[in-house]
Amino acid sequence: MDEPGSIWTQAGHELPQRVYFEDTDFSGRVYHARYLHFMERGRSDYLRLIGIHHHALAAEGRVFAVRHMAIDFLKPATIDDVLTVRTSTVKATGARVVLRQEVRRGDEVLVAATVTVALVGARGRPVKLPPAARDALAARSGTNG
Amino acid sequence: MDEPGSIWTQAGHELPQRVYFEDTDFSGRVYHARYLHFMERGRSDYLRLIGIHHHALAAEGRVFAVRHMAIDFLKPATIDDVLTVRTSTVKATGARVVLRQEVRRGDEVLVAATVTVALVGARGRPVKLPPAARDALAARSGTNG
Amino acid sequence: MDEPGSIWTQAGHELPQRVYFEDTDFSGRVYHARYLHFMERGRSDYLRLIGIHHHALAAEGRVFAVRHMAIDFLKPATIDDVLTVRTSTVKATGARVVLRQEVRRGDEVLVAATVTVALVGARGRPVKLPPAARDALAARSGTNG
Amino acid sequence: MDEPGSIWTQAGHELPQRVYFEDTDFSGRVYHARYLHFMERGRSDYLRLIGIHHHALAAEGRVFAVRHMAIDFLKPATIDDVLTVRTSTVKATGARVVLRQEVRRGDEVLVAATVTVALVGARGRPVKLPPAARDALAARSGTNG
Repeated sequence: MDEPGSIWTQAGHELPQRVYFEDTDFSGRVYHARYLHFMERGRSDYLRLIGIHHHALAAEGRVFAVRHMAIDFLKPATIDDVLTVRTSTVKATGARVVLRQEVRRGDEVLVAATVTVALVGARGRPVKLPPAARDALAARSGTNG
Repeated sequence: MDEPGSIWTQAGHELPQRVYFEDTDFSGRVYHARYLHFMERGRSDYLRLIGIHHHALAAEGRVFAVRHMAIDFLKPATIDDVLTVRTSTVKATGARVVLRQEVRRGDEVLVAATVTVALVGARGRPVKLPPAARDALAARSGTNG
Repeated sequence: MDEPGSIWTQAGHELPQRVYFEDTDFSGRVYHARYLHFMERGRSDYLRLIGIHHHALAAEGRVFAVRHMAIDFLKPATIDDVLTVRTSTVKATGARVVLRQEVRRGDEVLVAATVTVALVGARGRPVKLPPAARDALAARSGTNG
Repeated sequence: MDEPGSIWTQAGHELPQRVYFEDTDFSGRVYHARYLHFMERGRSDYLRLIGIHHHALAAEGRVFAVRHMAIDFLKPATIDDVLTVRTSTVKATGARVVLRQEVRRGDEVLVAATVTVALVGARGRPVKLPPAARDALAARSGTNG
């Protein structure tokens, strides 16, 4: 099944996401940790669309784990906003994938992040990316990567 | 702008929702409180599509607050599932709206709830629904209400 | 190790919980689904203190799943509040435990709920409560049950 | 009122935090974004204990906003773990505070982060830290800062 709303652009994968009550805090803005949820949804759809499924990995005892994030929170989002999560590969080598992610509202970049994820096995040990997955990720490096 | 993915059916409003990492817990299933998030998103889109916007209400010092929920958790959802949140009005009177909501996976009902929300003002006092909103809500009572 | 802050009273188990940014939404109040998190923490500590540990259950392929909740949201909590989650057993029979839970701020009851949880096995099938656990739960029925 | 569980050590402020169902995901480990919640609770208690209260700031139209985070996710936490959030000031100048935070389990560092927060006013504009707050923060720079 196609991912509803997901599209591929020259800049990478884009997933639209609405801001709901749950995403905001008493300051009236989106709670900072919620952007990590938006970005994780973007990564999951990005991976799924290039053929990598969490439940299939899990059946083999493998899972993607986040290793490092550097995040700039530039401008706030608020209730009812429609945001776009843009994801592209910076590099994919060994067990690691480095992604560039942005949360945007139209042309404004609200949050920009570099995210390193690793494929790990049952004991948390790094597992080499299957060559097909690595090549599919590498092919998706965006012009903003 | 149209709500991406939202549709109206004979049974009410339907919003598709993907299950992501954030929604699951170590039992391998969706964490029970996350269904309330899915249902809140369904209610927000339902209200928005009949012309009720949270940010516009907030600008007038009004907000919808949940007063009561009765929830049956019938079957578990898991990672990567695509769920449908179905929402219809049971009744809309005074400051209160009673909604019937279901979280479904295809034809299976995973979670079924009756939800009472009230429009409240700055001090938490109930505020009468504007007649246009009340009528729009009443017109949307589904056949499964 | 003792549960920090947990105490037993005539009315049952009490767990103090601070309201943080993450718990609030743009209305300035605690987001309704967050009370379910507070109550789940209360149940987990309640169970742990009578000798039932989630990780030990999980090692045997068992987990507690919420089956039903009826919740009244009576008054709002706000940032920096210190709340108390009060938990007591209503009944414990077969695979099911019915609990009474309240989220309080001092003497005010903000949220009151009846919660039914069931012990389930790997396929989601109900599993009988071990007699020792059932008896320990039954012994903890509070005067407000 | 004293913060339950909070203590001051030579290394800074320490807040114990239990891992509950809500914090885990289907991989069996704590969901990466949840560590930001733990760290935000640590920062809030750290600030409160040196006399900075979110609700008092909010009454003046001010709020702390996260500007930047660099986070290393080193080792996973799991259900029932008791973690310690350690917080110390790196520097406090103008409107900005740079903090060093760690999430630990005993002597193990599971997550290490550098967090920049800024005090902002109603329009999101930076607001100078009150001198008393800046001095109190500077006095709390830990030996691990």
